[in-house]
Amino acid sequence: MSSSAAARLVQQVQFIAEVDKLKDIFRQSLTTQSRRNENDAEHSWHLCLCAIVLAEHANTPNLDLLRVLKMLILHDLVEIDAGDTFAYDVARLADQHEREARAADRIFGLLPPDQAAEFRALWDEFEEKVTPEAKFATALDRFQPMLLNCRTEGAAWQRHGVTHDRVLARNQHVAEGSAAIWDYAQQMVQAAVDAGHLAPAGPRRD
Amino acid sequence: MSSSAAARLVQQVQFIAEVDKLKDIFRQSLTTQSRRNENDAEHSWHLCLCAIVLAEHANTPNLDLLRVLKMLILHDLVEIDAGDTFAYDVARLADQHEREARAADRIFGLLPPDQAAEFRALWDEFEEKVTPEAKFATALDRFQPMLLNCRTEGAAWQRHGVTHDRVLARNQHVAEGSAAIWDYAQQMVQAAVDAGHLAPAGPRRD
Repeated sequence: MSSSAAARLVQQVQFIAEVDKLKDIFRQSLTTQSRRNENDAEHSWHLCLCAIVLAEHANTPNLDLLRVLKMLILHDLVEIDAGDTFAYDVARLADQHEREARAADRIFGLLPPDQAAEFRALWDEFEEKVTPEAKFATALDRFQPMLLNCRTEGAAWQRHGVTHDRVLARNQHVAEGSAAIWDYAQQMVQAAVDAGHLAPAGPRRD
Repeated sequence: MSSSAAARLVQQVQFIAEVDKLKDIFRQSLTTQSRRNENDAEHSWHLCLCAIVLAEHANTPNLDLLRVLKMLILHDLVEIDAGDTFAYDVARLADQHEREARAADRIFGLLPPDQAAEFRALWDEFEEKVTPEAKFATALDRFQPMLLNCRTEGAAWQRHGVTHDRVLARNQHVAEGSAAIWDYAQQMVQAAVDAGHLAPAGPRRD
C-alpha cells in the first residue's frame, strides 16, 4: 500500500468512528417490537432496505439505485451535530437547513477532499429533491416513519397531537418519488384513522 | 398501478415491517458514545457506510459496490430468528449456518418469489465468501467490530476473555477482501494490546 493510500485509510477510519455517534441520535418514531425510540443509524438501514425492496415502484424506471443507497446511508449524518428535527416541529424546521449545512461542512470535511466533495454533493442532491434518485430516497424517508407509526398504533402521532390532515400535507411529496407508494400510504394512514390511532383533523380545521 | 404491482407492494411492506425486528437483535460490540450494546440494524448501516468510504481499498478494483451494499443490508436478517452468534462463541458457531439457513427460508420467503430468490442468492453469496464482493463485505463485517472494540477500550473482548491471538486468528480473513484494511487492523489491534485493552495471549498458548 502506498503511503498516501495508508494516510487516506487513517483519515477514513477516523470518519467511520466519528459517525458512530449517529447511533445515539434518537427520532420520534418507535420501533415495532420494543416500542423504544428509533435512532438515526437503524432508521438509515431500514431506508436502505426499503430502497432495494421497493425500487420497482419508483416513478422513474431504472433509477441509479447505488446513488439512492449512498444518499440514504449519508442523509442523516448532519444530525450528529444538528440533532433530529421532528417532521411536525414547525419552529425547528425553520432553521433546519442552516443548522444541517454547518454540520455537513464539519462532518464530511473529516474525509479526504475528493470524498468530502462527493459525499457533500450527494447530501446536497438529497436535500434539493430534484433528481429522480433524490425524490425516491425522500419518498422512502417519509414513508418509513408513517409505516412505523401505523405499526405502533400511532404512538408518535398521538404523543405530539399530529392529525390526519397534517400527515397528508407533510408527506404528499412521497408521490413525486413513487405514486404507487403514496397511494398505498394514503390507504395505510386512512386505516389508522379508522382504527382510532390517528385523529381525523386538527382543531383549526374543525 | 396494476393489481399485481399493488399486491406485490402489500407483500413487500409486510416484509419491511417484519424485519424491523432487526433493531432488537443485540450484538456484543458496544457503541462508542453511550457504551450500550450495538444492534444488528445499526451495525448493518455502519457496514454500508464503511463500504462506500473504503471501497478503494478492496483487493479487487472496480467491485460491484451495489451488490456489496445489498449483501450488507441483508446479511444479518437471519438473526431475527437465529439470534446473534458472538464471533468467539465456539459452541454456537458450530450449528450457526444451519440455524441461519432455516431463518433465511422463512424471512426471504415473505417476499414475492423473484425477490425472495434474489435476496437468498445474495445471502448465500455472502455466506460462501467466494466472490470479490462477498470477500470485501466480509472484511468489513470483521473489521467494524474490531474498530468498536478498540474505541471502547476493548470492553467486549475483556468481558468475554478474548485474547490477541484469537482476534488475529478469527479475523485474518479480512485480508482476502482487503490487504490494506487487514494491515491497518493489525496495527490497530496491536495498539489495543499495548494500551492494556486486549490481553496478549490465552492461557492455553502461554
